[in-house]
Amino acid sequence: MFFHVKELQYNAKPSRPDPVYAKKLQEILGGQFGEMSVMIQYLFQGWNCRAEQKYRDMLLDIGTEEIGHVEMIATMIAQLLDGAPVQEQEQAAKDPVLEAVLGGMNPQHAIVSGLGATPTDSVGYPWNARYTIASGNLLADFRANLNAESQGRLQVVRLYEVTTDPGVRDMLSFLIARDTMHQNQWMAAIEELEQGQKAIVPSTFNQEYEKQDVSYSFMNFSQGEESKTGRWASGKSLDGQAEFTYVSTPEAMGQNPKLAPAPSYIHGTPPTK
Amino acid sequence: MFFHVKELQYNAKPSRPDPVYAKKLQEILGGQFGEMSVMIQYLFQGWNCRAEQKYRDMLLDIGTEEIGHVEMIATMIAQLLDGAPVQEQEQAAKDPVLEAVLGGMNPQHAIVSGLGATPTDSVGYPWNARYTIASGNLLADFRANLNAESQGRLQVVRLYEVTTDPGVRDMLSFLIARDTMHQNQWMAAIEELEQGQKAIVPSTFNQEYEKQDVSYSFMNFSQGEESKTGRWASGKSLDGQAEFTYVSTPEAMGQNPKLAPAPSYIHGTPPTK
Amino acid sequence: MFFHVKELQYNAKPSRPDPVYAKKLQEILGGQFGEMSVMIQYLFQGWNCRAEQKYRDMLLDIGTEEIGHVEMIATMIAQLLDGAPVQEQEQAAKDPVLEAVLGGMNPQHAIVSGLGATPTDSVGYPWNARYTIASGNLLADFRANLNAESQGRLQVVRLYEVTTDPGVRDMLSFLIARDTMHQNQWMAAIEELEQGQKAIVPSTFNQEYEKQDVSYSFMNFSQGEESKTGRWASGKSLDGQAEFTYVSTPEAMGQNPKLAPAPSYIHGTPPTK
Amino acid sequence: MFFHVKELQYNAKPSRPDPVYAKKLQEILGGQFGEMSVMIQYLFQGWNCRAEQKYRDMLLDIGTEEIGHVEMIATMIAQLLDGAPVQEQEQAAKDPVLEAVLGGMNPQHAIVSGLGATPTDSVGYPWNARYTIASGNLLADFRANLNAESQGRLQVVRLYEVTTDPGVRDMLSFLIARDTMHQNQWMAAIEELEQGQKAIVPSTFNQEYEKQDVSYSFMNFSQGEESKTGRWASGKSLDGQAEFTYVSTPEAMGQNPKLAPAPSYIHGTPPTK
Amino acid sequence: MFFHVKELQYNAKPSRPDPVYAKKLQEILGGQFGEMSVMIQYLFQGWNCRAEQKYRDMLLDIGTEEIGHVEMIATMIAQLLDGAPVQEQEQAAKDPVLEAVLGGMNPQHAIVSGLGATPTDSVGYPWNARYTIASGNLLADFRANLNAESQGRLQVVRLYEVTTDPGVRDMLSFLIARDTMHQNQWMAAIEELEQGQKAIVPSTFNQEYEKQDVSYSFMNFSQGEESKTGRWASGKSLDGQAEFTYVSTPEAMGQNPKLAPAPSYIHGTPPTK
Amino acid sequence: MFFHVKELQYNAKPSRPDPVYAKKLQEILGGQFGEMSVMIQYLFQGWNCRAEQKYRDMLLDIGTEEIGHVEMIATMIAQLLDGAPVQEQEQAAKDPVLEAVLGGMNPQHAIVSGLGATPTDSVGYPWNARYTIASGNLLADFRANLNAESQGRLQVVRLYEVTTDPGVRDMLSFLIARDTMHQNQWMAAIEELEQGQKAIVPSTFNQEYEKQDVSYSFMNFSQGEESKTGRWASGKSLDGQAEFTYVSTPEAMGQNPKLAPAPSYIHGTPPTK
Repeated sequence: MFFHVKELQYNAKPSRPDPVYAKKLQEILGGQFGEMSVMIQYLFQGWNCRAEQKYRDMLLDIGTEEIGHVEMIATMIAQLLDGAPVQEQEQAAKDPVLEAVLGGMNPQHAIVSGLGATPTDSVGYPWNARYTIASGNLLADFRANLNAESQGRLQVVRLYEVTTDPGVRDMLSFLIARDTMHQNQWMAAIEELEQGQKAIVPSTFNQEYEKQDVSYSFMNFSQGEESKTGRWASGKSLDGQAEFTYVSTPEAMGQNPKLAPAPSYIHGTPPTK
Repeated sequence: MFFHVKELQYNAKPSRPDPVYAKKLQEILGGQFGEMSVMIQYLFQGWNCRAEQKYRDMLLDIGTEEIGHVEMIATMIAQLLDGAPVQEQEQAAKDPVLEAVLGGMNPQHAIVSGLGATPTDSVGYPWNARYTIASGNLLADFRANLNAESQGRLQVVRLYEVTTDPGVRDMLSFLIARDTMHQNQWMAAIEELEQGQKAIVPSTFNQEYEKQDVSYSFMNFSQGEESKTGRWASGKSLDGQAEFTYVSTPEAMGQNPKLAPAPSYIHGTPPTK
Repeated sequence: MFFHVKELQYNAKPSRPDPVYAKKLQEILGGQFGEMSVMIQYLFQGWNCRAEQKYRDMLLDIGTEEIGHVEMIATMIAQLLDGAPVQEQEQAAKDPVLEAVLGGMNPQHAIVSGLGATPTDSVGYPWNARYTIASGNLLADFRANLNAESQGRLQVVRLYEVTTDPGVRDMLSFLIARDTMHQNQWMAAIEELEQGQKAIVPSTFNQEYEKQDVSYSFMNFSQGEESKTGRWASGKSLDGQAEFTYVSTPEAMGQNPKLAPAPSYIHGTPPTK
Repeated sequence: MFFHVKELQYNAKPSRPDPVYAKKLQEILGGQFGEMSVMIQYLFQGWNCRAEQKYRDMLLDIGTEEIGHVEMIATMIAQLLDGAPVQEQEQAAKDPVLEAVLGGMNPQHAIVSGLGATPTDSVGYPWNARYTIASGNLLADFRANLNAESQGRLQVVRLYEVTTDPGVRDMLSFLIARDTMHQNQWMAAIEELEQGQKAIVPSTFNQEYEKQDVSYSFMNFSQGEESKTGRWASGKSLDGQAEFTYVSTPEAMGQNPKLAPAPSYIHGTPPTK
Repeated sequence: MFFHVKELQYNAKPSRPDPVYAKKLQEILGGQFGEMSVMIQYLFQGWNCRAEQKYRDMLLDIGTEEIGHVEMIATMIAQLLDGAPVQEQEQAAKDPVLEAVLGGMNPQHAIVSGLGATPTDSVGYPWNARYTIASGNLLADFRANLNAESQGRLQVVRLYEVTTDPGVRDMLSFLIARDTMHQNQWMAAIEELEQGQKAIVPSTFNQEYEKQDVSYSFMNFSQGEESKTGRWASGKSLDGQAEFTYVSTPEAMGQNPKLAPAPSYIHGTPPTK
Repeated sequence: MFFHVKELQYNAKPSRPDPVYAKKLQEILGGQFGEMSVMIQYLFQGWNCRAEQKYRDMLLDIGTEEIGHVEMIATMIAQLLDGAPVQEQEQAAKDPVLEAVLGGMNPQHAIVSGLGATPTDSVGYPWNARYTIASGNLLADFRANLNAESQGRLQVVRLYEVTTDPGVRDMLSFLIARDTMHQNQWMAAIEELEQGQKAIVPSTFNQEYEKQDVSYSFMNFSQGEESKTGRWASGKSLDGQAEFTYVSTPEAMGQNPKLAPAPSYIHGTPPTK
């Protein structure tokens, strides 16, 4: 069960309206790695958690924080949309900057949401739940989370670079800092989990049943061998089980497939006479 | 530019048809973490790569291998669909096992693809490109890749558990082994990159511009403090820059938002008299 | 079965080409509350109708009218796209107004549809059938319809405000008038249905089986009690069955969930030692 | 900003596992009118609210409650998935009931989420943000909300009918009761708003600018006149402005459209010689 | 503008309810090549038509017919859903055939649409407008139409094979016959257009500007030369302009791409030291 | 199994950066008829092929070539994005051309992909697998392929018209030439298949079971008879089986549908008293 506090977790006050920037800022609200994604991802990981209580509690802590981040960005966008010059069409035709703003803003911000934020990304594509993952295996999921916070912080930083509005930058500096914490947090949680199990997910599958002759070999499927010089091509494997090998010219190990004709009721390609 | 070799990378020969299992196996072909996802993800990361050539080469090596994995699974599915009892409707009504197979298979495998694999997941949802990420920052993307291989191997292992067909298990044991390698590979590549830059993505953002007082604090947004006992709540932060702190009762630091009324041409809620 | 008449239901003649406005106008053709949505929604409600014939007839009347509205808007968009300056790229680079038009129009209007309307919204997102509802319960569905016409008229009015083209405004004034009628119509139909059954959908569920102690209480899940002053917080409930009560500090009534560990073949998080 | 309480708002305890029912129950979690839809819809309406504070407060109260409803249903689904017979494939082939369960459950509940709830509907289609509406006009939006609660309660009631599990029914009886309240609530809020403005949304558009000769006429676009007997075809219009009229044979009022040929750089159909 | 006639174009009367078949039949209503696709496709091609009037008229004729086909199939599905055993859960647990039916039907047919057809395909995926094409070039589009009718008739035939219900088969025999006509129709229209222009779309592009040395060569990108024996590998090209040639070992003609590093504000991969 | 060659199939070197054109060029990479579509379509048709080996081989030849086309266009887009003026926001506000570029480019090209191509179309909509078809019937599928290459070449030609960059035009001239070949190729393959079977897909369905009285009649569902003058309305049918007839006023041949009321547990519209 949840409760709401009226104040925002941190300030969301732009220094001036900027409808074009409002469109871009949507990316970190409703994009693939926006705050809605981490909010839903962490909440579902918490609700589905079958492991120790401290993980469930931690997941719901951070998932709940992320709802507040969605709130901050939505509030910012609504204010950036104030003063959107949507009406002055005729004047715009004579004023190229105005016309450019009209061309650069998201038309749904005027027509559909009436100067409000929308649960979509910077090209207007709606957020969808296939952005999230909750697999029931926390080591796998914490890697998903570390990735989400890495992509997320990268996007916030890029958005920081393309504005000079001090109010917007102030809010973004808060989000960047939280993403610093959250990357640290998932790295810490991953380290803790890896100490209690093997590093390869799922650690509970008996490796005797996998085709072990290809478990540690890098296969060079392209012309040239630049890939041979990386850490992944030689030395101890990261799970400590073997040595990496480099296969310069991988061989096909499988059959040349020939499929049987389909039965008549499928009406596939008829045999040629 | 690419070339095709007729033989499969590894065998894809089921011991018997099984249309219900064919539906499930679609998950690792066209699902969120299926082979199509890693294929497109690695290829785009390679094509967009602006870093050293060894990374581009490595990405295109593995991306090219993944096209061959899609091929193996598609071939397997086509054969599992042989003998699908789609026609014998009347008989099925009297044979509950047959009826159950009909209920459990994907109807599009008969009606749409004519006993062929489809680029969809185990519920028939089509693969889409928002499953992939290529951000232009390799440390961020290699974390995405490590996650993809972790989720992927977990799903393949689960599919291994729900079949007893030795031919299917043989192919899956190969895929599981390759995922072992690929998790190792991305861990190795991450380690290599982290040695040359800071661990927090993007490492090139000047941390002075982030709100540093919240960069290392875990905030407890739920009742109870089980989350305090984790590695993420105390001790040195993983990036080595600070100590984690635990905030038991986080305070709101932002404004209580009041939005201005919309201009009249937006036709928002009229003011109450 | 349907027949087509060559003339449009009402004029669709712009006074001048305007490719940027064409992009915006797509919202009421292929958007969430565009004419395609109400067309498909009313037709399916009619075809699925298991109630009195007058409802089926009425639904098919209005659904058939809406096909004609899609036709009018599509025709308008095709004409607004005439003269789109897609070719004069070099000249545009020197002419900011031209460049702005290029930036502001939907590129698919030139590349994909060749100056024709598309079944998409104002950001180019394709219409999809999850926009519609036909539940088999007409009171529920007429509320969906009243909402659709309310959102729809609001969007048409906003589009009216952002153009000064008299031809476009003429067509929009017709659509606005029809939406006036259609809001009236659904209000009338709702009133008629509510007179024959209870107002709460579905009226046929025996309320003894619902948890009646929370059926009429407003729960204050946020700090502050501004919400207490609304009509929904006190007085007779609108279905006439009870009095509204206001719960200032709602209590959790459920368990603290603890999920069982997953069986081994699921390969969830392994227990920590 | 939000806080989480460990206990659920109400009990979510099934009496026995039932993976097939878990699949169906997803509809009210991640379907078009599931709890995720109302949660996101009310939160965005609240965050974007530019009207009196009591509306914003009320919207955030109910939006926050809905997060807790998502939590309850997710918790229920996780428990219904306990004991899913996903592994016993061989045995199932001999046991038709077991096989039927396998065919009837969502394969992603085993392979993807590891016995956890997913943010999808009962056919596995992911929740997406186009399910929600926040237009900036509260009368329009409250009609959307009344519809959402009507469709939602109807679906919960149908799910109540298809189970006999007392624990599931107990939770559903709570949700049904809350939906009773929420339908009442939106009816109350609509009534309150309609008292201060005209009933036709948006009430602020000057009706002189609409084509008033068709603002109150029902048009009979199908053969037969059953639709003439409804409340919508005669009598005072619901907005009190006019009388309904019935047009038996609507006439086309617009042009027969002829589009100009496309310019050569569009490469449309070349003129026939 | 459109009018509706109460009677169906052809009978849609099943001999008995069959909810599992209802799910499958959805494919030709709301699937990629279902009747909704051709309906929307032909209507938009007609509305956007800038060519001779006979084409516009013909497109609207057939588009209008297809609305009636959607109506027929929707009506059939509603009747097939009668008697769906959704309620008798407890009994079903003991009756495997009943349980299988429950597992095999679409749960939304009960929970969401209340025994009505839905605008979705046989796996419940909603119809979307990216299924359609209207390019403004009729030769291109008529090829799209011939394909749509070919895929469509193939699917109807497969659905014919998996039922023995004489009423269903009667309706399908009508649809199959109309698809026979419509394949013939598009072939006739293509032949007519090809007589007035070149066969390669768009015929209006000056072929001097294309890289003509690769305009008629088949490139063998896979091991083995089975593809050499086809009509496409030798002989006169179908447009009559040249001879086909077969390139056994295609050579790369382009550069080895090296992308420049991204500017600093993009925060791509930092250079390794 | 696949191998990669470092060099591109043909040059992809723009003469200057052009972020607005990069956005448009995405259409032929990740759009409905972009190179990703034909790549996935041909590969799946090949992998699922149950016909003669020469067809499988040919399909995999061309599918493999298309991977290289995706690679060329992705490489081109990355270079067109060089120098995107994303940072100079303040300066842009004073420079309308710069502002227009900002408004006209895809914001995700900066924020999400860091100046890389994305698997999306020109409005940023992600590629999805419902764009492809592999039905198991090659005659049907080769018609899909002929359409794909027709739409594809049309779009490339339109993109050729809207740029003057000689490097971009050079690459497009190559793609246009290959599309010339591929249209020829599918026409040749269709001709070959039609010689061995009847032209109507599927040719294996016994036409006695279709409603043959409507198999060759054009039905005039709209006012006016312009459609009577086309090749499709009279003369020998294209499959050589009959004469076309023209039905000026088609009659309904089916029932006036009346659906039975739903059972009580569905909670449909209650009967009016």
